[in-house]
Amino acid sequence: MAVADWLAALDRRAELRAKAGLTRRLHPRAADDGVVDLAGNDYLGLAAHPEVTAAAAQALAAYGLGATGSRLVRGSTDVHHTLEDTIADWLGSDRSLVFSSGYLANLGAIRALVRPRTLLISDAHNHASLIDGCRISGAETVVTPHADVAAVAAALRAAPGRPAVVVTESVFSVDGDLAPLARLHATAREHGALLLVDDAHALGVLGPDGAGAVAGAGLTGEPDVVVTATLSKALGGAGGVVAGPAELVRHLVETARTFIYDTALPPVVAAGVRAAVGLARSGAGLRAELAERAAVAVDRLRAAGLDVSAADAAVVSVTAPSPEAATAWAAACRDRGVAVGCFRPPSTPDSRSRLRLTISAGVPRGDFEHALEVIVESAP
Amino acid sequence: MAVADWLAALDRRAELRAKAGLTRRLHPRAADDGVVDLAGNDYLGLAAHPEVTAAAAQALAAYGLGATGSRLVRGSTDVHHTLEDTIADWLGSDRSLVFSSGYLANLGAIRALVRPRTLLISDAHNHASLIDGCRISGAETVVTPHADVAAVAAALRAAPGRPAVVVTESVFSVDGDLAPLARLHATAREHGALLLVDDAHALGVLGPDGAGAVAGAGLTGEPDVVVTATLSKALGGAGGVVAGPAELVRHLVETARTFIYDTALPPVVAAGVRAAVGLARSGAGLRAELAERAAVAVDRLRAAGLDVSAADAAVVSVTAPSPEAATAWAAACRDRGVAVGCFRPPSTPDSRSRLRLTISAGVPRGDFEHALEVIVESAP
Repeated sequence: MAVADWLAALDRRAELRAKAGLTRRLHPRAADDGVVDLAGNDYLGLAAHPEVTAAAAQALAAYGLGATGSRLVRGSTDVHHTLEDTIADWLGSDRSLVFSSGYLANLGAIRALVRPRTLLISDAHNHASLIDGCRISGAETVVTPHADVAAVAAALRAAPGRPAVVVTESVFSVDGDLAPLARLHATAREHGALLLVDDAHALGVLGPDGAGAVAGAGLTGEPDVVVTATLSKALGGAGGVVAGPAELVRHLVETARTFIYDTALPPVVAAGVRAAVGLARSGAGLRAELAERAAVAVDRLRAAGLDVSAADAAVVSVTAPSPEAATAWAAACRDRGVAVGCFRPPSTPDSRSRLRLTISAGVPRGDFEHALEVIVESAP
Repeated sequence: MAVADWLAALDRRAELRAKAGLTRRLHPRAADDGVVDLAGNDYLGLAAHPEVTAAAAQALAAYGLGATGSRLVRGSTDVHHTLEDTIADWLGSDRSLVFSSGYLANLGAIRALVRPRTLLISDAHNHASLIDGCRISGAETVVTPHADVAAVAAALRAAPGRPAVVVTESVFSVDGDLAPLARLHATAREHGALLLVDDAHALGVLGPDGAGAVAGAGLTGEPDVVVTATLSKALGGAGGVVAGPAELVRHLVETARTFIYDTALPPVVAAGVRAAVGLARSGAGLRAELAERAAVAVDRLRAAGLDVSAADAAVVSVTAPSPEAATAWAAACRDRGVAVGCFRPPSTPDSRSRLRLTISAGVPRGDFEHALEVIVESAP
């Protein structure tokens, strides 16, 4: 029977993953489990900040839970508009548009930048949402080796006269390294191409006033740079944003399927994120603490003989000898009250498995130091 | 200069839309604007229900605003698990998995159902997220005429021996008509194909205990039926869900890119939606009121000589003579305190423009009656 065949096929694939040490399981998380979080993306500890939750609670009381519809159909709340103005001002962009997730923002942004004959040039380490954005756009896509500006230039030279968009993360989500944004921009501009930067792991973490890696690279307000980001990492909420020229934002409002045909971000979330932007913007002290902790983490783990990535922002990657070892390592940490990311293929850009540590300035310092000890002591 | 060319091209496209009467603009919506809502999807009036907002507020206090990461990486809160168990129980499904939006749920579900050589058979009126799901899956897709079971059967017969998935909405979002689910299922089963149903506009609205149109068609728990839905319409929140066999849900957890590489739905939203499920499930009185209102709306508008769709659920479509007339009609309603949807190409499955009315049991009865008068009096 066809259904039985289908379910059996799913089972066989699950068995293959299990044999390769690549099973993924959801692990329970209680609100008050006291776990030291080196797995989430709440880099500045704003998700539970009293100003953030108070702003959210106020919007919950005023609007109810959900947005109850697409913004074009049901109306566009003042909370959304204020958030977009605030983000555009922070990033030095002309305008911004909020989506209900960072994934959907990337799908919408890439498709909006594609014209007939457009060539997309995508970094080999790009996030799944950027890869899917390229795919769904239907445009020809060249994947260039990671952080390889010369390869990007070569791809552009090979497509003279064609519209082109260079697509990259700023801080890459697995290894935490920073893209060569200034050189990528110079190369893109030289060839008349646009540069789309997903600043998800840098917003609030890098750049002047935490305005991200694009701002940090001196590219604020450049009309050929489009910035996307999530509102769910340093800003502690949910949703995504695209920032760029007013013409682009109008184009997104009028044509982006993942904006038009999607229920808006709940006002409760938009209001909380707006409060978080204010805190992130003035959070130089938090950022200094974060940078210092990232450096401490790298030093401490390297001193223990571990293979550790450079930490350009707040993401630190630690090599594990195998997928099974990575899983066991993460489980041992979890058993001792420390949450770490466990990244295995196909979630890694190469065949290596890793622990991914995400540093947060919101974790008590003593807990952070203790967590590093636990990671070292649990190492395979 | 390339950037100037790009921005000028965006401007030209905006001008073409304007000339065709197809400009889309965001209209402001205040929390306390007193507008009668016949535009949103809060069918049962649960978005601002005190039990929903109280449950949300409690989770906000317990967890903070955002989920702070992907559920596989940061841990999977008890709020998410409880919501998934509650939904699976409600729908009579083996298991369910919550995504951060209905759009992402559809992208993930369709891709998960695709094996090598799979043929997707997609209804011509399907929602953008289903169309994009077919596209991103990379599978060959046949678009069949709307609600045409014979065409689906023909497409299946033409692909003997190939895995196939029939993809449909239950209540179609523009015209509000109900797909022939029982016949589609019989046809799919006859050919060993799976049936994927997006029950977004029926969950909470149709079926026993509001369990949706799939349940209403007697297909509860059928192993060859996969149900997707949004949590942002009758449930008043945000997010999406996929419900089906346990093997499928495990497969989604382990492989669905839009689940794995996405920040989880905020606990505040998941908790509010869970409370809404309880209210929706026991909301037979609300559903009776809703059905009665939909019938009243159709009768009243038809009596005024308007061209009105049959209202199989709570979506009522009213033909407008032109895109410009639809825009002016919706604006006239808005000016008199009534929000209605204004649907024009390319958001309509044909070249016709419409007002789309979404009936809600949560609107005071007098306001609802008044809104119908306003719509009739403002008609072009």
